[in-house]
Amino acid sequence: MSESKHTVKQDQEVIKQHNKQLVLDVIRTRRPISRSEISKITEMSATSVGRIVSELTDEGLVRETSLTSSGVGRKAVMLDIEPSGRYAIGIDIQKKRIVIGLMDFAERLITSKELKHTSQEAQAEETIALMASSVTALLEEQGISSAKVAGIGIGTPGVIDYERGVVQFSSTLGWRDFPLAMRIQEKTGLRTVIDNDLKVKILGEYLFGAAQGSDKTVLINVGTGIGSSLIINGDIFRGGSNSAGELGHMTIHPHGNLCECGKRGCLQTYIDESALLGEARKVSAIREIGELFAAVRRNEEWAVEIIDRAAFHIAVTINNIVCLYNPDTVILSGDLVEGFGEILEWLDRHCEQVVWEPFRDSFQVIASRLHGRSIVLGAGALALQQATHN
Amino acid sequence: MSESKHTVKQDQEVIKQHNKQLVLDVIRTRRPISRSEISKITEMSATSVGRIVSELTDEGLVRETSLTSSGVGRKAVMLDIEPSGRYAIGIDIQKKRIVIGLMDFAERLITSKELKHTSQEAQAEETIALMASSVTALLEEQGISSAKVAGIGIGTPGVIDYERGVVQFSSTLGWRDFPLAMRIQEKTGLRTVIDNDLKVKILGEYLFGAAQGSDKTVLINVGTGIGSSLIINGDIFRGGSNSAGELGHMTIHPHGNLCECGKRGCLQTYIDESALLGEARKVSAIREIGELFAAVRRNEEWAVEIIDRAAFHIAVTINNIVCLYNPDTVILSGDLVEGFGEILEWLDRHCEQVVWEPFRDSFQVIASRLHGRSIVLGAGALALQQATHN
Repeated sequence: MSESKHTVKQDQEVIKQHNKQLVLDVIRTRRPISRSEISKITEMSATSVGRIVSELTDEGLVRETSLTSSGVGRKAVMLDIEPSGRYAIGIDIQKKRIVIGLMDFAERLITSKELKHTSQEAQAEETIALMASSVTALLEEQGISSAKVAGIGIGTPGVIDYERGVVQFSSTLGWRDFPLAMRIQEKTGLRTVIDNDLKVKILGEYLFGAAQGSDKTVLINVGTGIGSSLIINGDIFRGGSNSAGELGHMTIHPHGNLCECGKRGCLQTYIDESALLGEARKVSAIREIGELFAAVRRNEEWAVEIIDRAAFHIAVTINNIVCLYNPDTVILSGDLVEGFGEILEWLDRHCEQVVWEPFRDSFQVIASRLHGRSIVLGAGALALQQATHN
Repeated sequence: MSESKHTVKQDQEVIKQHNKQLVLDVIRTRRPISRSEISKITEMSATSVGRIVSELTDEGLVRETSLTSSGVGRKAVMLDIEPSGRYAIGIDIQKKRIVIGLMDFAERLITSKELKHTSQEAQAEETIALMASSVTALLEEQGISSAKVAGIGIGTPGVIDYERGVVQFSSTLGWRDFPLAMRIQEKTGLRTVIDNDLKVKILGEYLFGAAQGSDKTVLINVGTGIGSSLIINGDIFRGGSNSAGELGHMTIHPHGNLCECGKRGCLQTYIDESALLGEARKVSAIREIGELFAAVRRNEEWAVEIIDRAAFHIAVTINNIVCLYNPDTVILSGDLVEGFGEILEWLDRHCEQVVWEPFRDSFQVIASRLHGRSIVLGAGALALQQATHN
């Protein structure tokens, strides 16, 4: 009954879109398959299936195979997807590098390249020009016409207006209200979609990495930035304005450390890289976070204390996230777990203490499997999703 | 593309169920409507639409009207839903009372009755017998045959295994691993679905109350129990084991008050009714929470301090929930807001301080509109949803 209130779900364009996606999904998962089998499975009329299959073949996404059905009666032509029918570009913009990858319609990463570039030190237009020329060069190298490219997907840290393609705020990149999608689209002529990097990252982990087979997964990122994302049955959970999962400014100590945002006790002031470096530098003149991990591995007490305290606060955060989201899997990603994988054992120990007992066996904590590649893969997949959304 | 990995979405039974629900939804929202219009809107074949409409009329959910279409060509028979075609029972079990309501297929509450009953002081079987006999009596009074009842929906506090119909743990009712749905079903012969009371409550607010028109709504309940629920586009967000929203044991002060669960700093130790009473009784021999509210209204400093501190902690919680869920609406329900509605203004003031700035204008905080009735309404609607899920 509840559904009866969403007129949007009955909107004819939405239904048409749903049906086209459904036909494509049925072909992808049951290929090779005939039109009449698709009709039977989806309950759609032969006319509608025929029209949609024509659209998909005209768009080069689906092809007729040389196979015919093996059943009795008139032999039917079998359909399959066309891996080279469409490509997508996935881009991962981070503080000091940009990674650009090319993905085919079967969601395989064909090639990728990494550019050393610090967006904060450049004019936004320089960054745009660099990305656009790199995309063009990549396609030329591979001999792929831009007509075959469904679009560009970009994952980037910050508050992203997914609908409008605007970076509302990114301290990492130094952008505010920047229409990233439109600018890239203007320069490349390719449809561009942008999203928060962690939302794209969990899509990558869901499709290709640590979250495969789990359908209620949280990703927690701990590094220079703190954030999280949630995927439910393959759908990225966005919240009302694509800002669900903004972990860094959850209050963990109501009267605690002052944060750059002006509030007290924000989580990031206890566990992000600059917080850990700040603590460490009270004791030792270290330059970068790897030296702190090295000191922990040498069992230096001050370093152990800093990481143990961070692990405690991450465990408290896991409790708080698990209480609200009730996931079956928690993926940990970011510089902390990449540089100091042992943290998972420390977390286990703290979770025993600080996770509410009824939830203690309801989820697993694992490390990201794709590390650097997950954002490129997720961003490419996001762009490919647009292939049928014309 | 992400959808291609869920074989469940392409499962034929799921598609059939989706299509049946879709046809019913189209009839509900566009009635009166002809079969051919349904076919056009849904892109389903005339055969499939005809079959589904036959099923729905056989089940008494849909009827042919005396109207015919006004367009050119052959006159088509128009279809409408049948309000008396199906009924549902909604039950709200709380600490000291049980409310039972009767809802028709148009989701109108026909009648309801309240029973004074403290489940914790009774044998579980007495509570079951009382509910079952009351349901039977209510149907007899209204002259409704049980064949016309889609089922019973029950909302109850605690950790509920929605899939299996088991109350895993409810301190309010004193039940643990109690197969509530099965026992009620055995006694009444009616299909029974149970859910956590706040999940049902937000469904009620979404369909009939404060959350109408909002599609990313959080409900926060503050009273004898602390909890929350989330509804997204009309779907209750359940998490992996129907335990999403377990607010009471989120850690708000990592080294704070000891909780009955054994952890330190759980939210409920700062804002639930027993926490407020505990504080108040250090100063004044009050018996119940209303006396604390009265003292605040008399501007007694100690009472103002207690409620102000609670409001601060609720505001911090709103920040934490908004950071994770990013809702457009936060509904406050429970004894605190019902007994002391002024708390909303106090919350406004604290939210100015403790909600992360980018989120400050992204949501509204409002009071529950249905109060006592929302659980009965939501539970009835949940039971009605089963009408087509045979």
